[in-house]
Amino acid sequence: MQWTKVLGLGLGAAALLGLGIILGHFAIPKKANSPAPQDLDLEILETVMEQLDAHRIRENLRELSREPHLASSPRDEDLVQLLLQRWKDPESGLDSAEASTYEVLLSFPSQEQPNVVDIVGPTGGIIHSCHRTEENVTGEQGGPDVVQPYAAYAPSGTPQGLLVYANRGAEEDFKELQTQGIKLEGTIALTRYGGVGRGAKAVNAAKHGIAGVLVYTDPADINDGLSSPDETFPNSWYLPPSGVERGSYYEYFGDPLTPYLPAVPSSFRVDLANVSGFPPIPTQPIGFQDARDLLCNLNGTLAPATWQGALGCHYRLGPGFRADGDFPADSQVNVSVYNRLELRNSSNVLGIIRGAVEPGEPSSCCLHPRPLLCSGCRCPHPALPLPPPSPAPPAHLSLSSGSLPLFLWPDRYVLYGNHRDSWVHGAVDPSSGTAILLELSRVLGTLLKKGTWRPRRSIVFASWGAEEFGLIGSTEFTEEFFNKLQERTVAYINVDISVFANATLRVQGTPPVQSVVFSATKEIRSPGPGDLSIYDNWIRYFNRSSPVYGLVPSLGSLGAGSDYAPFIHFLGISSMDIAYTYDRSKTSARIYPTYHTAFDTFDYVDKFLDPGFSSHQAVARTAGSVILRLSDSFFLPLKVSDYSETLRSFLQAAQQDLGALLEQHSISLGPLVTAVEKFEAEAAALGQRISTLQKGSPDPLQVRMLNDQLMLLERTFLNPRAFPEERYYSHVLWAPRTGSVVTFPGLSNACSRARDTASGSEAWAEVQRQLSIVVTALEGAAATLRPVADL
Amino acid sequence: MQWTKVLGLGLGAAALLGLGIILGHFAIPKKANSPAPQDLDLEILETVMEQLDAHRIRENLRELSREPHLASSPRDEDLVQLLLQRWKDPESGLDSAEASTYEVLLSFPSQEQPNVVDIVGPTGGIIHSCHRTEENVTGEQGGPDVVQPYAAYAPSGTPQGLLVYANRGAEEDFKELQTQGIKLEGTIALTRYGGVGRGAKAVNAAKHGIAGVLVYTDPADINDGLSSPDETFPNSWYLPPSGVERGSYYEYFGDPLTPYLPAVPSSFRVDLANVSGFPPIPTQPIGFQDARDLLCNLNGTLAPATWQGALGCHYRLGPGFRADGDFPADSQVNVSVYNRLELRNSSNVLGIIRGAVEPGEPSSCCLHPRPLLCSGCRCPHPALPLPPPSPAPPAHLSLSSGSLPLFLWPDRYVLYGNHRDSWVHGAVDPSSGTAILLELSRVLGTLLKKGTWRPRRSIVFASWGAEEFGLIGSTEFTEEFFNKLQERTVAYINVDISVFANATLRVQGTPPVQSVVFSATKEIRSPGPGDLSIYDNWIRYFNRSSPVYGLVPSLGSLGAGSDYAPFIHFLGISSMDIAYTYDRSKTSARIYPTYHTAFDTFDYVDKFLDPGFSSHQAVARTAGSVILRLSDSFFLPLKVSDYSETLRSFLQAAQQDLGALLEQHSISLGPLVTAVEKFEAEAAALGQRISTLQKGSPDPLQVRMLNDQLMLLERTFLNPRAFPEERYYSHVLWAPRTGSVVTFPGLSNACSRARDTASGSEAWAEVQRQLSIVVTALEGAAATLRPVADL
Repeated sequence: MQWTKVLGLGLGAAALLGLGIILGHFAIPKKANSPAPQDLDLEILETVMEQLDAHRIRENLRELSREPHLASSPRDEDLVQLLLQRWKDPESGLDSAEASTYEVLLSFPSQEQPNVVDIVGPTGGIIHSCHRTEENVTGEQGGPDVVQPYAAYAPSGTPQGLLVYANRGAEEDFKELQTQGIKLEGTIALTRYGGVGRGAKAVNAAKHGIAGVLVYTDPADINDGLSSPDETFPNSWYLPPSGVERGSYYEYFGDPLTPYLPAVPSSFRVDLANVSGFPPIPTQPIGFQDARDLLCNLNGTLAPATWQGALGCHYRLGPGFRADGDFPADSQVNVSVYNRLELRNSSNVLGIIRGAVEPGEPSSCCLHPRPLLCSGCRCPHPALPLPPPSPAPPAHLSLSSGSLPLFLWPDRYVLYGNHRDSWVHGAVDPSSGTAILLELSRVLGTLLKKGTWRPRRSIVFASWGAEEFGLIGSTEFTEEFFNKLQERTVAYINVDISVFANATLRVQGTPPVQSVVFSATKEIRSPGPGDLSIYDNWIRYFNRSSPVYGLVPSLGSLGAGSDYAPFIHFLGISSMDIAYTYDRSKTSARIYPTYHTAFDTFDYVDKFLDPGFSSHQAVARTAGSVILRLSDSFFLPLKVSDYSETLRSFLQAAQQDLGALLEQHSISLGPLVTAVEKFEAEAAALGQRISTLQKGSPDPLQVRMLNDQLMLLERTFLNPRAFPEERYYSHVLWAPRTGSVVTFPGLSNACSRARDTASGSEAWAEVQRQLSIVVTALEGAAATLRPVADL
Repeated sequence: MQWTKVLGLGLGAAALLGLGIILGHFAIPKKANSPAPQDLDLEILETVMEQLDAHRIRENLRELSREPHLASSPRDEDLVQLLLQRWKDPESGLDSAEASTYEVLLSFPSQEQPNVVDIVGPTGGIIHSCHRTEENVTGEQGGPDVVQPYAAYAPSGTPQGLLVYANRGAEEDFKELQTQGIKLEGTIALTRYGGVGRGAKAVNAAKHGIAGVLVYTDPADINDGLSSPDETFPNSWYLPPSGVERGSYYEYFGDPLTPYLPAVPSSFRVDLANVSGFPPIPTQPIGFQDARDLLCNLNGTLAPATWQGALGCHYRLGPGFRADGDFPADSQVNVSVYNRLELRNSSNVLGIIRGAVEPGEPSSCCLHPRPLLCSGCRCPHPALPLPPPSPAPPAHLSLSSGSLPLFLWPDRYVLYGNHRDSWVHGAVDPSSGTAILLELSRVLGTLLKKGTWRPRRSIVFASWGAEEFGLIGSTEFTEEFFNKLQERTVAYINVDISVFANATLRVQGTPPVQSVVFSATKEIRSPGPGDLSIYDNWIRYFNRSSPVYGLVPSLGSLGAGSDYAPFIHFLGISSMDIAYTYDRSKTSARIYPTYHTAFDTFDYVDKFLDPGFSSHQAVARTAGSVILRLSDSFFLPLKVSDYSETLRSFLQAAQQDLGALLEQHSISLGPLVTAVEKFEAEAAALGQRISTLQKGSPDPLQVRMLNDQLMLLERTFLNPRAFPEERYYSHVLWAPRTGSVVTFPGLSNACSRARDTASGSEAWAEVQRQLSIVVTALEGAAATLRPVADL
């Protein structure tokens, strides 16, 4: 070829190459630099659902409930090691795990001097004694580690007096006895579980000069009326006659000596003399066989119909025994309590799956815990589109963290927890939950260790200590890390007793978690016959008519029954508690019958509560799906507009049930109406903005901002100055409510107190103050939902 | 050509083109997709510095101080309109601006019945009256809007009694009078300003049965001893003899009727009878010419040397007048106060420059306030690198928000504020600050409206109402938007009195703001002769030896002297207060002499305080630079490790001055030492991680996470349960400290109270509790500084 041709061709080639370069550079979007950012990975979700194994949950439960593991006992500490071992397993463990210990005040019966309940005859001799232990029915009730039934934190003392029957030990029960003309001073009150909290029975009794309290479980309340040994465990799920419910009688939660401070050794401890919330008088729980001996021999007036139970006799009020019964008429009851308060070490175990820090994660080079900003670790993400086969681009170009749309939020935490300590073997409470915790962490840990998956947000697993004594481990944790948790926690998921019974899911939670639970449960098959989803089964048992959605499953609200309490009430973190539970048409049991007794064993679960462990699996799947959705979705699946329904219904209840009363005292609900309306409007508008953004290709920082609005909404309802007398309770929507009107608790409680006072009283001023507190909270909440750059 | 050749060439061309495309696509990084993200723009900063105009500040001040503008007065409302007009100006305004009004309790003298101070002779007749108004020296002191000097919130009443001199009205002053055997019951106490807070003088006096209080400004304290008319304004900057300092005598801050609640009309208001913090007895301020008439005629013992002042006579203690003076010996002083409490509307004005939401901003299409997610608005950013000239790439590729590294945080707020209300004309207090506020907003607003600049973070300008009565507007604002502000505010900058005098910068602030102020002031020329930077000039007047940095300017700590108080103490937002001030070697004046008098006028500033307004300009530039650095830097210029020095010095003071005492009571400082060490280590490590990241090309989400750690650190020092008796004060490091030891205030105060009690007392328990509170806060703070995905 001529040189001109060569030149021409060369120039042409160069031009073409150049054009190609230009086109390639500018006209074709760089895929590796802008992959469709990956939302919740449905394949991962499916894998997790499949791998959550009923058999493994069963084996976990067998091991966890093999021995009694009372808080701070050697076996409790063994389980700490078991958890650490599992969470540090190289094949299926988490990124890191550690135990942390608090020094907390617990209460135990004396081993040398057991608590006793005796009947003392007229001459002062003991003529009858109640059982000190439960009957050894399955060979598991007799061991040295089975703690004697007792009322934790009840003071020691040996009161003796005539017996009276006081129903559930509520304030009105004692008033009824007074009305009946019964002299209560110096008596021993026999009460049954239920109605009011454990500790409240002794508090109420002491106000009337009662010297000691007995508490038993009536077969009417727990056994659907059945009480004979052949009708009860191990022949059925019902409580044997000797079974006794243990429990904490402390009124508050958290370590009693270190309110608002973590119970680390150096922390200030309240002088014992100044501790409030312990029962004021000796108290002891007994089984219904003992209660029958006492109650069926009582003298006096017949108790009201609603006070009657299923012990097979007519309950009388006392005082003292009737002359024609088993004991002399002037026999007294002696309650000797020798409980001791002890400072003990109790451990939490915490395990973490770090949220991804870089887009390259995960892969083998990213597996091991390492400093946050290890920028040398870049690994191809399986979900990223592969470059075309040839010619291979330089490897370093296939990923560039500088220009990738990152949706990685390791500083956002999804917390999942359950307590570890039990009263005895605690197969149901709490090990049915811990068995699931271990299975969930195994499945997620395995994906993690294989390099298949790493969550967008960090997931923290917690095994709390000393919950049974008053949510102590979780509360101390929230006290120690208050700010960090409050700033970063997306939600807290609690699975304590995972299976009460086999019928249906039951969820308690704040409104923003409703939608994520619905999404999760619609995709999981319900155990049992038929082909229903958990959601479709659930709606048959618990439902309500929502003005927005029509008929939906109804969530319960969160009290303080388990470790979610400090998270929602003290920190304002959206929380939920998940379990499988009863068909209420089939049993009226207050709770599963062997609750807090030595009969809550592995066989009890395996034979009666959940043979096959399919309900356990259902709860594990529900919780697992919720965890993944919360940790991996771009947009936090917290639907803040679902608070609007709650607020509207609280408002309507206030208007209907308190409106007239308030008007009499010149208190207007107008500002509350306005505030609720503002909240509704802003929540709806925010939802709209999110929907719009979801349709496009969202920008990571915009998503982060919106997610922060969603996450922090719950915090806006906290006011630590709203109820200073209610320790830890700062959430103006979910603080304890005494009145029967289901409305804003501060308003409701203040109205109850003001009701019988004159206009202009301090009590009515407090009603107005409480109204302003809730209005301010709602207005503040609405303000946080507005576009962030608006005034 | 042969077809094979054509084919060959075609194929070759295609191959070359293809190769080009591949190379272009993969081998050349897409610049528009990964521009070096722009940090603080130094050109913009330079422009702002240049455009801040001393002359315009002067003209602002002239207008602002033209008339008296007492809180809630018509002129105060006129200035609200002036601010709104400026901030809504199409050429130089902000994105949006609005006024918001609170209904607050203010206190005014009666217009019909002026407060009077008379000397009543033995027969009951008035033999002498103090001046009711200040002398009309410049023609500005006589107007109808000049409020009579008074002690706001002092109760009305007409006490009469013998006069005593009580120095500064401190607790120890009254004890001294008692020691001298002077009967205080029923007397009128003459006190001078300074030493203790205004309200405290009456509180202390009332404890001793004193019936009324007079307060004056001694020429020794304010005028460097000068007192004659020819030595004072308008002949010098000193206070004329008739000048009277007005002021609020309320002990707390915020609207007195709505503690913790915003003073919106619907909010609950405390019954007046239950309001605490008002002076308990009638109180009235007077000028030193009147004080001289009273004090120089007193009878009794000679006052101690430290009680003497510059009125040109020997101060005696009283009670009553001496026989050889101007008044009969048994003359009494009558103080008639007719102040009234009134609910008034007081406005804040808020203006916002929205932080950029999209990378295309700003340009003409992005200028007007619009919904957050207006995704249609994409405009080329001048700072983005331009694509190569030809062939022009499709326009839509030059910007793609999906793949750009965004550093836009409209949900982070930089707050800048000052109050608007004055006592009279308030040229210095507060208009010298407001004049700067208007100039800053003009310069930034102009850049904004021109499309030259939009900040990364949102900037909020605030003009607070009713500060003079107790920081009311700012406090109500923080009560109304507590959560939103706490979650999102990066820092609060306060410029109240911007120029006390011409000598040097003076900054009060929390440790994290030190570095940004240093950076800003090193780059700005100091006014006055020489070529010093503001920083270099500053260090000559206020300095300290830092273990980390060597000699540096020293920042003062924040009390509650202006509107920063609710931000730092109640919300835990890093705050600062910036001003120019005295050469302390040249004057001993407590404050600028015409403070809170009718002589604080434009001419006073223009002639004496800052002729040429170069100090005003210096403050404006400092504040402007700080605002830009806080709003535009990728990494928040808040250096949390600078808290380490403070903590270490508090710790050392505790060890040196309280250690032995604590040891006697078996209280160990060991946990505090550990906590401080942990904080130091974590703060240093975080600083290291940021440095490392700054050297690379940081990822927006990583930066956001680190910035959140920096921003939220100050919040971790808040504990609303630490000092429940100290309204609003929740910051465990900066709450009021009574003891002289410069250490942790809770510890210091508790030690002061416990010092004289036995070991085991409640007071010593409180010392331990306060120690645990601060240890918990420091441990919690350290935990928030750790890598976010660590346990």
